Amino acid sequence: MDSPARPAPAPAALLYYVAFSQLLGLAVVAMTGTWLGVYRGGIAWESALQFNVHPLCMVIGLVFLQGDALLVYRIFRNEAKRTTKVLHGLLHVFAFVIALVGLVAMFDYHRKEGYADLYSLHSWCGILVFVLFFVQWLMGFSFFLFPGASFSLRSRYRPQHVFLGGAIFLLSVGTALLGLKEALLFKLGTKYSKFEPEGVLANVLGLLLAAFGAVVLYILTRADWKRPLQAEEQALSMDFKTLTEGDSPSSQ
Amino acid sequence: MDSPARPAPAPAALLYYVAFSQLLGLAVVAMTGTWLGVYRGGIAWESALQFNVHPLCMVIGLVFLQGDALLVYRIFRNEAKRTTKVLHGLLHVFAFVIALVGLVAMFDYHRKEGYADLYSLHSWCGILVFVLFFVQWLMGFSFFLFPGASFSLRSRYRPQHVFLGGAIFLLSVGTALLGLKEALLFKLGTKYSKFEPEGVLANVLGLLLAAFGAVVLYILTRADWKRPLQAEEQALSMDFKTLTEGDSPSSQ
Repeated sequence: MDSPARPAPAPAALLYYVAFSQLLGLAVVAMTGTWLGVYRGGIAWESALQFNVHPLCMVIGLVFLQGDALLVYRIFRNEAKRTTKVLHGLLHVFAFVIALVGLVAMFDYHRKEGYADLYSLHSWCGILVFVLFFVQWLMGFSFFLFPGASFSLRSRYRPQHVFLGGAIFLLSVGTALLGLKEALLFKLGTKYSKFEPEGVLANVLGLLLAAFGAVVLYILTRADWKRPLQAEEQALSMDFKTLTEGDSPSSQ
Repeated sequence: MDSPARPAPAPAALLYYVAFSQLLGLAVVAMTGTWLGVYRGGIAWESALQFNVHPLCMVIGLVFLQGDALLVYRIFRNEAKRTTKVLHGLLHVFAFVIALVGLVAMFDYHRKEGYADLYSLHSWCGILVFVLFFVQWLMGFSFFLFPGASFSLRSRYRPQHVFLGGAIFLLSVGTALLGLKEALLFKLGTKYSKFEPEGVLANVLGLLLAAFGAVVLYILTRADWKRPLQAEEQALSMDFKTLTEGDSPSSQ
């Protein structure tokens, strides 16, 4: 556990945890759909139901897909590093596009109904998530894919990128919880304290969201589950670096 | 960075980050006090102001003190491990006692006012935090202080303890955000969208809470800031083990 460079065989427990995280993630998406379908009249773009596009898109994009994008390096342990990187970046693109639809839905709904924008803690956290997510993606793309930074810069930036990625994911989960709470209190008001079925279902959804966040975080932080360094990675990386930039791998 | 066993000198950047975390933590406590004092009439036990005891105690105990308890191993890098352990355990006891006062205040207030208990997502998360915190403390105390487990058990349990500690702390921060949101929506209602001063102040408090959580997490997860193993620790640990249990350090 103390020698992270030792190439480890894919641990069986990791697979169980990944499977569990996927069950939780799918349960979160399914339960969000159920909540919106059963208690909020379903989803549509051209009506008051446009509101409901927002939670569904955010949960799919910024919780489920973002979480899975972080797990890519744990799951694809023996693929070429670059393939895994591209998948990691692409999953984030999907997550971003879906979240953008959710964001536009909310602003459009607010505009049609004449509601104020960006006054709540949920919205402030949400905008923060969006900005950080976008900056992080651009930085990650430039440092690790194109044009790619020097090896020394990459290895100095990598820990910051990893930490910020985890933090943005956790902030996304927290923002989802705040939004869920807001949606409940706006509609249920004091009925929330009567253990209305919608309130109980939404509370369970909240716990599942937190559990998904916790399991993803656990998988990411287990030192002995980190992706082992492949023998050919150094060489591949050099090739790619030379192709894209003509820069010497040993340069600063 | 890849050789965690290498004894490192106390990194200067760590000190700046710790100082920043303390500034944020104190700002969170001061701002919670300001919020309750300016917009909620202050604090008292024998009136409707008993409600206000709850957020203040929770923020001091489960956010600020709990966060600092986690940082103890990063700050006291050259003290005897056992001293650091005892401080870590004691800070958690203080945190727990203060949080217990905050919990009792809320149940007592609910009882006097005839409000229902434990119906909201905030309360569910809060109870989860309490149970996990208590179990984690008992497990930590039994494994690492008294009676203390065998070396092999300790080293297998340590990573779980560290992860769960971080997760409980983050869940505490998330629960505080949910509680803040609840308190705002219950009182402000639709006025929240008019950018009322209380709403804006509470939103800033929410961002500060999230920032404190993020900085503590950053300090904890920086691999090169982990506490270096002291030369005498193995021997000290053996002495303590023999004194408390008469068990051989090499036993299973």
